[in-house]
Amino acid sequence: MLLHKNDIEALERRFRTHLINGVTGFSSANLVGTVGAGGQTNLAMISSVVHIGAHPPLKAMVIRPHSVPRHTLENILETGHYTLNHVHADLCLQAHQTSARYPREQSEFDACGLEACWLDAFPAPFVARSRIRIGMRYREHQTLAINDTVLVVGEVVLIDVPDDCLVATGHLDLERAGTLAVNGLDGYHDTRQLTRLAYAKPDCPAGPLSPETTGYQAGG
Amino acid sequence: MLLHKNDIEALERRFRTHLINGVTGFSSANLVGTVGAGGQTNLAMISSVVHIGAHPPLKAMVIRPHSVPRHTLENILETGHYTLNHVHADLCLQAHQTSARYPREQSEFDACGLEACWLDAFPAPFVARSRIRIGMRYREHQTLAINDTVLVVGEVVLIDVPDDCLVATGHLDLERAGTLAVNGLDGYHDTRQLTRLAYAKPDCPAGPLSPETTGYQAGG
Repeated sequence: MLLHKNDIEALERRFRTHLINGVTGFSSANLVGTVGAGGQTNLAMISSVVHIGAHPPLKAMVIRPHSVPRHTLENILETGHYTLNHVHADLCLQAHQTSARYPREQSEFDACGLEACWLDAFPAPFVARSRIRIGMRYREHQTLAINDTVLVVGEVVLIDVPDDCLVATGHLDLERAGTLAVNGLDGYHDTRQLTRLAYAKPDCPAGPLSPETTGYQAGG
Repeated sequence: MLLHKNDIEALERRFRTHLINGVTGFSSANLVGTVGAGGQTNLAMISSVVHIGAHPPLKAMVIRPHSVPRHTLENILETGHYTLNHVHADLCLQAHQTSARYPREQSEFDACGLEACWLDAFPAPFVARSRIRIGMRYREHQTLAINDTVLVVGEVVLIDVPDDCLVATGHLDLERAGTLAVNGLDGYHDTRQLTRLAYAKPDCPAGPLSPETTGYQAGG
């Protein structure tokens, strides 16, 4: 099926929301944990985290004005810190429930049955049951004039990962952690690693990083 | 294992690159197709596509100065258009190989064995073997002062999807299409849908969008 610009514009609104949200494939599944200056915690599902750089270690996320409550952004600007917590299969229902529009005075940690925890005096709350957790320090944000979404850039300043999910190369074993991938607003998927490929060079065909550790078979 | 800021800074450079790239989970697997004003085509693997909005239909992608050749960005600015093509398991090796540093005059379509195709006079090349393909019109870009990465925002103006991968709600069946998820720079994963969850409301526990179509079982 080939949809042109006028076909896309004519789609029923909810159909179009689903199609456009999911059309570019999978995204990451994280819960953003924050706390306001007054001590009120907040937790929000976010699937828009994107890599910005490793040296320094930077990640960005897109906060949309109409889809995600701004409590998260307000808290980040107040305290300068936030957490990213991987969503696993056993957290999926509670994680999704955080996207409901709870009033500011109600913490999604409590409302959705996800216990908060505090690591090493880091000034934002983590999700106790999440197995890969990242402490972020706010660096900058930009508003996109095109539709008022906000790009928040932060620095990775704390990483908490189970020993058996971190391999010798620095890669993470996300299947062992049980981390999910998201499609669109509502699709939750588990994964199976097919291969890790070596750094690509023009004169050398693509191949696995290490057949022993990835289980990759040529042609498989 | 708990890594603090000074631990992260002290990590061996390649280890840190892998860890930071992958630490926030999965991302989308797309090939960006472009053509320069002189007719030279270019194809680049990109895992940083992120949703910006559905009304109007906008997606952004992050182009990093040191990791992705700038030919893609230069072509987009010259012609105002680009394509996003899903990466499937049977395209994985060739897709990854596009990240090698080929000279400008060599097209990654040819060098990596991926045939280009042109749909309905759209002014940028698609990947013939990709099953979900999107035509994008350039809208704006911003350079992030923090590390010179560039955020490119485009509008979805063409969608090509197999009939049997588009369901009645507007969702896509990415498993049927064979679309992969990426972790970090080099991990390629296939997926299995666990559930699609209904729009979350504060007074209603999270549940599946439609048990009949998702196969979701409560507690499963």
